[in-house]
Amino acid sequence: MTEHDIKDQSLATGGRFRIDWAEQEMPVLRAIRERFEKEKPLKGLRVSACLHVTTETANLMRTLQAGGADVVLVASNPLSTQDDVAASLVVHDEIPVYAIKGEDDETYYKHLSAAIDHKPQITMDDGADLVSTIHKSRREALETIIGGTEETTTGVIRLKAMAKDGALEFPVIAVNDSDTKHLFDNRYGTGQSTIDGIVRATNILLAGRTLVVGGYGWCSRGIANRASGMGANVIVTEVNPMRALEAVMDGYRVMPMTEAAKVGDIFVTATGDIHVLDTHHFEVMKPGAIVANSGHFNVEINLKGLRKISDGDPKLVRPFVEEYSINGRPVYVLGEGRLINLAAAEGHPASVMDMSFANQALGAEFMMLNAETLKNQVYTIPADVDMEIARLKLEAMGVGIDKLTEEQETYLNQWQEGT
Amino acid sequence: MTEHDIKDQSLATGGRFRIDWAEQEMPVLRAIRERFEKEKPLKGLRVSACLHVTTETANLMRTLQAGGADVVLVASNPLSTQDDVAASLVVHDEIPVYAIKGEDDETYYKHLSAAIDHKPQITMDDGADLVSTIHKSRREALETIIGGTEETTTGVIRLKAMAKDGALEFPVIAVNDSDTKHLFDNRYGTGQSTIDGIVRATNILLAGRTLVVGGYGWCSRGIANRASGMGANVIVTEVNPMRALEAVMDGYRVMPMTEAAKVGDIFVTATGDIHVLDTHHFEVMKPGAIVANSGHFNVEINLKGLRKISDGDPKLVRPFVEEYSINGRPVYVLGEGRLINLAAAEGHPASVMDMSFANQALGAEFMMLNAETLKNQVYTIPADVDMEIARLKLEAMGVGIDKLTEEQETYLNQWQEGT
Amino acid sequence: MTEHDIKDQSLATGGRFRIDWAEQEMPVLRAIRERFEKEKPLKGLRVSACLHVTTETANLMRTLQAGGADVVLVASNPLSTQDDVAASLVVHDEIPVYAIKGEDDETYYKHLSAAIDHKPQITMDDGADLVSTIHKSRREALETIIGGTEETTTGVIRLKAMAKDGALEFPVIAVNDSDTKHLFDNRYGTGQSTIDGIVRATNILLAGRTLVVGGYGWCSRGIANRASGMGANVIVTEVNPMRALEAVMDGYRVMPMTEAAKVGDIFVTATGDIHVLDTHHFEVMKPGAIVANSGHFNVEINLKGLRKISDGDPKLVRPFVEEYSINGRPVYVLGEGRLINLAAAEGHPASVMDMSFANQALGAEFMMLNAETLKNQVYTIPADVDMEIARLKLEAMGVGIDKLTEEQETYLNQWQEGT
Amino acid sequence: MTEHDIKDQSLATGGRFRIDWAEQEMPVLRAIRERFEKEKPLKGLRVSACLHVTTETANLMRTLQAGGADVVLVASNPLSTQDDVAASLVVHDEIPVYAIKGEDDETYYKHLSAAIDHKPQITMDDGADLVSTIHKSRREALETIIGGTEETTTGVIRLKAMAKDGALEFPVIAVNDSDTKHLFDNRYGTGQSTIDGIVRATNILLAGRTLVVGGYGWCSRGIANRASGMGANVIVTEVNPMRALEAVMDGYRVMPMTEAAKVGDIFVTATGDIHVLDTHHFEVMKPGAIVANSGHFNVEINLKGLRKISDGDPKLVRPFVEEYSINGRPVYVLGEGRLINLAAAEGHPASVMDMSFANQALGAEFMMLNAETLKNQVYTIPADVDMEIARLKLEAMGVGIDKLTEEQETYLNQWQEGT
Repeated sequence: MTEHDIKDQSLATGGRFRIDWAEQEMPVLRAIRERFEKEKPLKGLRVSACLHVTTETANLMRTLQAGGADVVLVASNPLSTQDDVAASLVVHDEIPVYAIKGEDDETYYKHLSAAIDHKPQITMDDGADLVSTIHKSRREALETIIGGTEETTTGVIRLKAMAKDGALEFPVIAVNDSDTKHLFDNRYGTGQSTIDGIVRATNILLAGRTLVVGGYGWCSRGIANRASGMGANVIVTEVNPMRALEAVMDGYRVMPMTEAAKVGDIFVTATGDIHVLDTHHFEVMKPGAIVANSGHFNVEINLKGLRKISDGDPKLVRPFVEEYSINGRPVYVLGEGRLINLAAAEGHPASVMDMSFANQALGAEFMMLNAETLKNQVYTIPADVDMEIARLKLEAMGVGIDKLTEEQETYLNQWQEGT
Repeated sequence: MTEHDIKDQSLATGGRFRIDWAEQEMPVLRAIRERFEKEKPLKGLRVSACLHVTTETANLMRTLQAGGADVVLVASNPLSTQDDVAASLVVHDEIPVYAIKGEDDETYYKHLSAAIDHKPQITMDDGADLVSTIHKSRREALETIIGGTEETTTGVIRLKAMAKDGALEFPVIAVNDSDTKHLFDNRYGTGQSTIDGIVRATNILLAGRTLVVGGYGWCSRGIANRASGMGANVIVTEVNPMRALEAVMDGYRVMPMTEAAKVGDIFVTATGDIHVLDTHHFEVMKPGAIVANSGHFNVEINLKGLRKISDGDPKLVRPFVEEYSINGRPVYVLGEGRLINLAAAEGHPASVMDMSFANQALGAEFMMLNAETLKNQVYTIPADVDMEIARLKLEAMGVGIDKLTEEQETYLNQWQEGT
Repeated sequence: MTEHDIKDQSLATGGRFRIDWAEQEMPVLRAIRERFEKEKPLKGLRVSACLHVTTETANLMRTLQAGGADVVLVASNPLSTQDDVAASLVVHDEIPVYAIKGEDDETYYKHLSAAIDHKPQITMDDGADLVSTIHKSRREALETIIGGTEETTTGVIRLKAMAKDGALEFPVIAVNDSDTKHLFDNRYGTGQSTIDGIVRATNILLAGRTLVVGGYGWCSRGIANRASGMGANVIVTEVNPMRALEAVMDGYRVMPMTEAAKVGDIFVTATGDIHVLDTHHFEVMKPGAIVANSGHFNVEINLKGLRKISDGDPKLVRPFVEEYSINGRPVYVLGEGRLINLAAAEGHPASVMDMSFANQALGAEFMMLNAETLKNQVYTIPADVDMEIARLKLEAMGVGIDKLTEEQETYLNQWQEGT
Repeated sequence: MTEHDIKDQSLATGGRFRIDWAEQEMPVLRAIRERFEKEKPLKGLRVSACLHVTTETANLMRTLQAGGADVVLVASNPLSTQDDVAASLVVHDEIPVYAIKGEDDETYYKHLSAAIDHKPQITMDDGADLVSTIHKSRREALETIIGGTEETTTGVIRLKAMAKDGALEFPVIAVNDSDTKHLFDNRYGTGQSTIDGIVRATNILLAGRTLVVGGYGWCSRGIANRASGMGANVIVTEVNPMRALEAVMDGYRVMPMTEAAKVGDIFVTATGDIHVLDTHHFEVMKPGAIVANSGHFNVEINLKGLRKISDGDPKLVRPFVEEYSINGRPVYVLGEGRLINLAAAEGHPASVMDMSFANQALGAEFMMLNAETLKNQVYTIPADVDMEIARLKLEAMGVGIDKLTEEQETYLNQWQEGT
């Protein structure tokens, strides 16, 4: 039997149905899997993946396996695991999985260890926890590793900080930096699934509410756009003047969080930074304010600080909704400040993950072929691979586009013709 | 012990938490309950309510009870009952409830019978099933009934047909015709919750999909607006030229369903009519088309016809998602064609039901005071009551508005002043 | 030579080109004209029209003439006349016109007099100035008048006040109350053309500006919608709680004008009432605030009050832009507070006026046929005429819609079938 | 008297008023001018600018002059010159201007020659006509030139083609590549002003029309967004799969132009390429189709081809609207296929040009200081200058943003902390 640490094997059948449902929405990954099955480009490659254990990830794992890879999967977040999916991967695909929804910190790190024990040649990260743990405390694993891939903005920030410090010991593909990843997954995926997570957790009407989005990066502008599309009045906070100006021009109000805190009904953070919502913000919020996070780590909301200024322990008033009380005024925190789209909903829809994970699969292949020539830096997937993923996606959607005529091609390359 | 037929009393505590959560979003109903508690305007009044058994309905029941009414509640739809709510009403409030999620047709009608056995003086309907059953087969109940209220567009259409036929035997308040009901509940409530139901059932990305909305009444324009806000490309079908023209001017494509059927990815009906999606539509749909209903009755999608042209029985591929296969091409039907927002999600958010149910509570009070002078017709709540509900809602949201100055008041009433 | 008082006959050719251009966008009116030409239903009918003298009005005049009517046209607003159109009507169509762009008040009323001297049988009004003048000071004209039509919300409010006072001496068709008028002309027409007027007058970027709309009736919600579509952050002010609540749910901020005055960059009024922007509002506006009106009469902005608190006379800084200075802080008033879409732009696009003026033409015909049986009240055009206009419009746009099947028709008329 | 070739000096006063009006909307440029006045960083620098002669450009010219530069201005487009602005610059500022609205091709190139005769040290281009002419036929001018700046996407494409060919003889700053330029000017500026140009030229209602946008670059997505905001149903055509996919996800229909040509009511090109609308497209358009260009050069619409398949000469039916007839079916071309926002409206609003021209002014200063160290390549303005422009703009708009706390700064730079 495949090694594993999962919740319950009997959930496997339901998991398989859901994995198949997602697979229908992932035509690009499917095309890659079909090629992988024939070509076996990852033959014998040991891959340790630390990702959200969802139906989409399951399809990525099966694609890598089809390519010949020897894969292990562990959770990249204690709350995001879909236990039926974990079961199906173990039971139907014989892929070792270590992930249990709601696992405590100790278990989380034990699972991380299992991934490292696999002696990976390639790491596949979502938030850089695997890379970071290896560099900090499991350096013996560095020996076999030829490279890694990283899914998130947050992880890429960490890796670039490592590279800048000269601390990074192998090359990493920043999957997040592919256009087919961050322009789609971060914007449309996070946009819809964050709204979905908030609505499932609270069932509140968004129309007519003031919703404050922390940040105006790709994720946060997706959230702002969709919240606005649901009838909310959106306020954006930023530290970057360029993005702040874009938010203003897009018709949103922009103000410092200390001001926004006073007028918001709902708050969502997606900045990649720490304590975007801090004690002095909670103190001025309206009674009944709802607070959620959609950034990778659960550090954006200062929950310790909130606890400190609260009257007693938080109270669970609905699944994923905890009531903190500040001098009698309630503040509601969703999903313990973890990624709300994964905690209370099902994460990104498969059709965006299709492209993100096409980048993962092709990133692993690229790393296998090119690791020797790469430095210990953070790399982006080649532009033509990125563009090809977009092309495949359009084709799968049945959307036709134009082709440059010869005349047009020529025109773009000459500079003599004028007004 | 209170009489009842519910799933499981032990669910009561969870139900109570969720009822309380909803209650926070229902400040108008709360204000009414506080007055009712003091004034007891419904003292001794027997009310039989046939409504969706949700957290919001629970708050309406408690309001009527606070007003002195003797209430019984049964389900208005076999799929929409929230079993924990039913339990809490029985256990904590001693209100008889007859409703079990997923009950079969026989049980559904048995429950309806229990409501009639209560010998109601006032009926409270959501779709007119109670009124219609009494008129068809339980006419002895007419003796005690002084009037009724009706929640939905669909029900109001039925009741007006009855009144037109001279068949209606008592006056009914069309709650749906209040501005504070249909302008808000139908538009913003149905809009958000339908999207919510579809996303929970399927977890598909709406951005980039072609979504076809059957109808452009208040419900369907809410759906069109929100789908568009989530990035879908929306097509509207209509039979009414005025509404069709509005849809065109609002930027949507409008076409007959036979054409829309060929290009849509997702279909949602909300017309109040039968077989909006019929056999000849399914036959031309793209493989993988998703079909849902948000109208009151499960007649808008011709499921029998679909079954007839399908290869074998439908297959449940995810909760609330059944795959029919037409010559090998899959068509997915959500929630068995029942109201998707109640089948797969939690129905309308509390903050819109707040106003709808304020109309119900005040409608019952109005009926009690005025039944004798009313004819056996369909009535609308007086405009000033309707406006007062809006005023209370704004006040609760902390939104200030202007007041006509004396000068402005005068200006509006004179006609001499010119250019 | 046709009698007239216009700017310059030599402008006729340019006017004719523009009238023909508009005509292409008016297929419904064209269909009516073709029938009128054959049937001559208005044969010999004297009509005095007091309307904005625009290309669209010219097409209405030609339609009435084709129907056999003897028509005179005068301006309903001193600033809205298109002098080339006036010239073309006189020169090419031999229709007497009395209208000069920028005419002073005395001339305006002299022209009104000319319309009354025509001894009309039917009056056609835009703001009820003709009806009101006749009732106040030219009562001898009442003798020949059988009825009238009125185009605007503002005029209808005046007429209803007259009818309520028992002062109205003949029946009037409220064209504005037709669905094919106010749902389209007021909303989409005023929406686009008001934005157009503001941009032509100022050439400022709307994106990123806070735009305050006075009112949330059909006109003002059109303005709010389009301003939002151009990237402005929109605030709505209202006196009506129902409308205010709709504005909130539509995602706008709602607040009293005294608060909005402090934060707005641009202000537009469209309420039909007086002094929506008053002295105490101007006093708190930001330096550089821009103020425009899109309501029928130039009373919505208290210009006299503004003048009184200003330092000296206003200064024309661009065509249609006057700078008032309050203690050194500039406030800019557009188009002297008159309808900005007509003052600085070309009024409503022809394709919406198509339906409004179809209502005018059919309203005149209806009045001719039914005047005897009508009371001295304000009437709406029959619903089937209204619906037929919508149907013709869709047909002309090449938009197909569905038809109820027999099964559907039956379903809607029965009430027995249930859940 | 200052040398010049302009329409009419007597227009100067009106021009000055309008220049001052624009200046109010250009606080960033004003701040730069104030510094330039003190520091005179461009003292003695000869600058030849080939730009659209608009109120905003006038303010740039005055800024350069304030910095000590010796400036000459010529038109970069025969149709875009505002004659009153040209007059004011000559009369009030003593800046030589060579530009007349509607000038023929010969005059256009004569004016270009005058700019070169000025023996510029720095060229300032909008479309690269000045640079291209110098390289092709006035190479003696290369002697004094130290560098140039370029405003547009189109110009930058040309310059990069030149650099790639090794043909570029001096370094050029691609102002267009600054974030504060293309993210704002191209998107919000072109978006609004293109709609403005189309509406002024035609006065048609956009709501309910199918509008086809050629391209989905920054300019074209601005147009798509605003057209959609005005109620149009938008179709996008693209050659780039990544952009096409974004357009799909943004809710637009995407298809090849040959298909779009059949269903569009209005067409706008903004691709930077040639013959985006070609003969075979015109042949399948609906009667009455309207065609406009918003790209830099008038090559995007194949007018010669259109002429060839037309019945006789085009007919001017309104200012800026020419009717071509193909077998009796009319096609309307706006503004002779030139930039519609400049041909029929006033170009970009001042508040976006504020940032673009801040880049121009600082680009000239940067070139003066750094020309010696630069290669004959295309450069972008340093990121910190770009960011500072955004910061100044926000400050001028009174918008506050957040600052990273020390804790947040630290967090972003470390990589150890995990889940």
